Amino acid sequence: MGGSIIIEAARKGQITPEMEYVAKVEQIDPQRIRNLVASGRVVIPKNASRDTIPVGIGESMSVKINANVGTSKDFIDVEEELKKALIAVQYGADTIMDLSTGGDLDEIRRNILDSIKVPVGSVPIYQAAQDSIADMTSDDMFKAVRKHAEDGIDFVTIHAGVTLDALEQMKKSDRILNVVSRGGAFTIAWMIHNEKENPFYEEYDYLLEIAHEYDLTISLGDGMRPGCIADASDQPEFMEFITLGELAREARSKDVQTLVEGPGHVPLDDIGLSVRMMKRLSDGAPLYLLGPLVTDIAPGYDHITGAIGGSVAGMHGADFLCMTSPSEHLCLPTVEDIKEGTIVTKIAAHIADIVKIKDRAKKMDDQMAIARKNLDWERQFELSIDPEIARSIKNSRQSKSDACSMCGDLCAIKIIQDALR
Amino acid sequence: MGGSIIIEAARKGQITPEMEYVAKVEQIDPQRIRNLVASGRVVIPKNASRDTIPVGIGESMSVKINANVGTSKDFIDVEEELKKALIAVQYGADTIMDLSTGGDLDEIRRNILDSIKVPVGSVPIYQAAQDSIADMTSDDMFKAVRKHAEDGIDFVTIHAGVTLDALEQMKKSDRILNVVSRGGAFTIAWMIHNEKENPFYEEYDYLLEIAHEYDLTISLGDGMRPGCIADASDQPEFMEFITLGELAREARSKDVQTLVEGPGHVPLDDIGLSVRMMKRLSDGAPLYLLGPLVTDIAPGYDHITGAIGGSVAGMHGADFLCMTSPSEHLCLPTVEDIKEGTIVTKIAAHIADIVKIKDRAKKMDDQMAIARKNLDWERQFELSIDPEIARSIKNSRQSKSDACSMCGDLCAIKIIQDALR
Repeated sequence: MGGSIIIEAARKGQITPEMEYVAKVEQIDPQRIRNLVASGRVVIPKNASRDTIPVGIGESMSVKINANVGTSKDFIDVEEELKKALIAVQYGADTIMDLSTGGDLDEIRRNILDSIKVPVGSVPIYQAAQDSIADMTSDDMFKAVRKHAEDGIDFVTIHAGVTLDALEQMKKSDRILNVVSRGGAFTIAWMIHNEKENPFYEEYDYLLEIAHEYDLTISLGDGMRPGCIADASDQPEFMEFITLGELAREARSKDVQTLVEGPGHVPLDDIGLSVRMMKRLSDGAPLYLLGPLVTDIAPGYDHITGAIGGSVAGMHGADFLCMTSPSEHLCLPTVEDIKEGTIVTKIAAHIADIVKIKDRAKKMDDQMAIARKNLDWERQFELSIDPEIARSIKNSRQSKSDACSMCGDLCAIKIIQDALR
Repeated sequence: MGGSIIIEAARKGQITPEMEYVAKVEQIDPQRIRNLVASGRVVIPKNASRDTIPVGIGESMSVKINANVGTSKDFIDVEEELKKALIAVQYGADTIMDLSTGGDLDEIRRNILDSIKVPVGSVPIYQAAQDSIADMTSDDMFKAVRKHAEDGIDFVTIHAGVTLDALEQMKKSDRILNVVSRGGAFTIAWMIHNEKENPFYEEYDYLLEIAHEYDLTISLGDGMRPGCIADASDQPEFMEFITLGELAREARSKDVQTLVEGPGHVPLDDIGLSVRMMKRLSDGAPLYLLGPLVTDIAPGYDHITGAIGGSVAGMHGADFLCMTSPSEHLCLPTVEDIKEGTIVTKIAAHIADIVKIKDRAKKMDDQMAIARKNLDWERQFELSIDPEIARSIKNSRQSKSDACSMCGDLCAIKIIQDALR
């Protein structure tokens, strides 16, 4: 199997190579990383059998971003999904999740694991339910988790908070869109069909055993997350927060690294509430947010509505943002969509980092300000989050002056420098 | 001259046709609009001589957006600037500002005023200083204001807060980018060259007389706004807030409608501070924000960093957002840039409206959620902020199912509907 269980080592006072690595990247004392990992406030998702680049997610870490890739039943092209994963990493994705639901899932997963060095996540129930949700057994669900762990997956989303109680809450609610989480929907459909409790909840200890064996990080999925602004911040959502908090604390006590997933669709002024509530209820578990999307009326621009929500969530303490692509709510994204979504989400993470980790992030902005003061365009491009696009826009409409063509010689920076000379 | 002075009428208890119009658009009682206009908390920028569509900006109104157009010394094409203005209005700009600095400024301004029915703003000092800042007289500055008012301009940005005191503050500060406001830079260069106080500050009463004569709305420009994250929320900025607050109250006492302009570049967690401070200091004057941009490292994506800042500013009470285009900091925008910037800023305004005016805005999102529940794609496109792009993305990768190609038959909405049946 190779490699020690990271959180176990941290608790024993050991600083593993993964902690050293993260300490260097984050410019934080390794001892402090060890403390944060031991307390479950930082996770380093890394399968014990895989040579994954260590990434620290959680308190005091820079905000990380994940890019989702994967086939659907309608579009099965392993090469294209690989391209998506590679371009996402190229533009700053810290982790990749393979959410494939169409084709040979084992082949796709292994391809991605072979090509990608950053942590790779998956949702095992997608595979367990691929042929038929109704015919899936609870054994199939756990087997899928084990198979993914064996293959080297670093973190898995498990919708253990979707319980019979939660289902009753949902039925009583006046939600417009009951459930929009795919894994949540599979679980609920299974529970209704079999009239049974969610196996991942009922046999959570067994899940934790498997996870511990492979040092698999569990990301507790929010199957009850709201799917529109109207459904946000309601009883089913907050009930699930409470369950996820309990499950996170339990996992930690069994030396399993755990993330907690959050909404979804949330009005801008409710994001702080959700983030603080989940942090409190889980004793500070790293928080992984899908968006959140702060309006429903902008299909085609949901990478932007997600970045708006993500920036604000990060400001309030969210640690890990899942990229949204321009094709969210419309179709399976293209490679270009994944690139665009990754860049925009990376911008959101940086904006949050200016608040979250302060000077460590802000020094990039300071360098840019100095380059602007000097009208040093090459340096500005170099410092840009997307140098290629910055350069091409600038060059498309050059000025006769050394400033840009918006103001030319009427550039405020130039005028003031001359006036103060 | 035609038309009454709107704020004067409001103070006399009269509900003018403009107030009636705004009341209908905003779905608010006309009497309440009258109160808000009388107290200066809402402005309806409309030159007394022009048949402008009335737009209410301020407390309890939906968040409005402005699109900047205009030539530069490097690119002088009246037709292109007109196209920008028209496409901005088509995609939801509530007002247009003509910031031209190159070519025959009178011709451009009149062309825009003839073609555009929404309120049009300008910055008269750009014209006064067009030939030479040093040779400009204070008389030229006031004459430019009068000329614009005569032509029918509805609101003008005046950098009256740029005072000798403010200049001293700035010199003492450790700003990286001293001044990035073009009008602010013109004013400071003039003050240094002439060793005199800013005429718009010193003879502010005279400015208000001109404004009152034409019912011209004054937008108090923030010449000292920070130009990068490092310079944000500093002494020169906050000193100017105080001056602008005083000037806004003075204008109001002379029956001149007034907006106050705000930063600029601001870290995400300082936006609320700036917005509340300016609202407090100006007794609730409508607040007009340029962005704010929440990072400096994303040239090419500043329409997005501006939308992130703008959403949060609107949530805290900003009333009027100036569009940023993807070419901000790089070059004069193209027509396509203006379209993109307008759509994204409109999204930001709507996101803020979900918080600011609640159900009046949220009902759009509710309709979308219902259309999604019904998998009614035509209705979803219809409700989209940009139906064209939503439709084209969806149609580019169709699903064999009635859901989208992200999930196909594994659509959570479909699964739950079936399971609950």
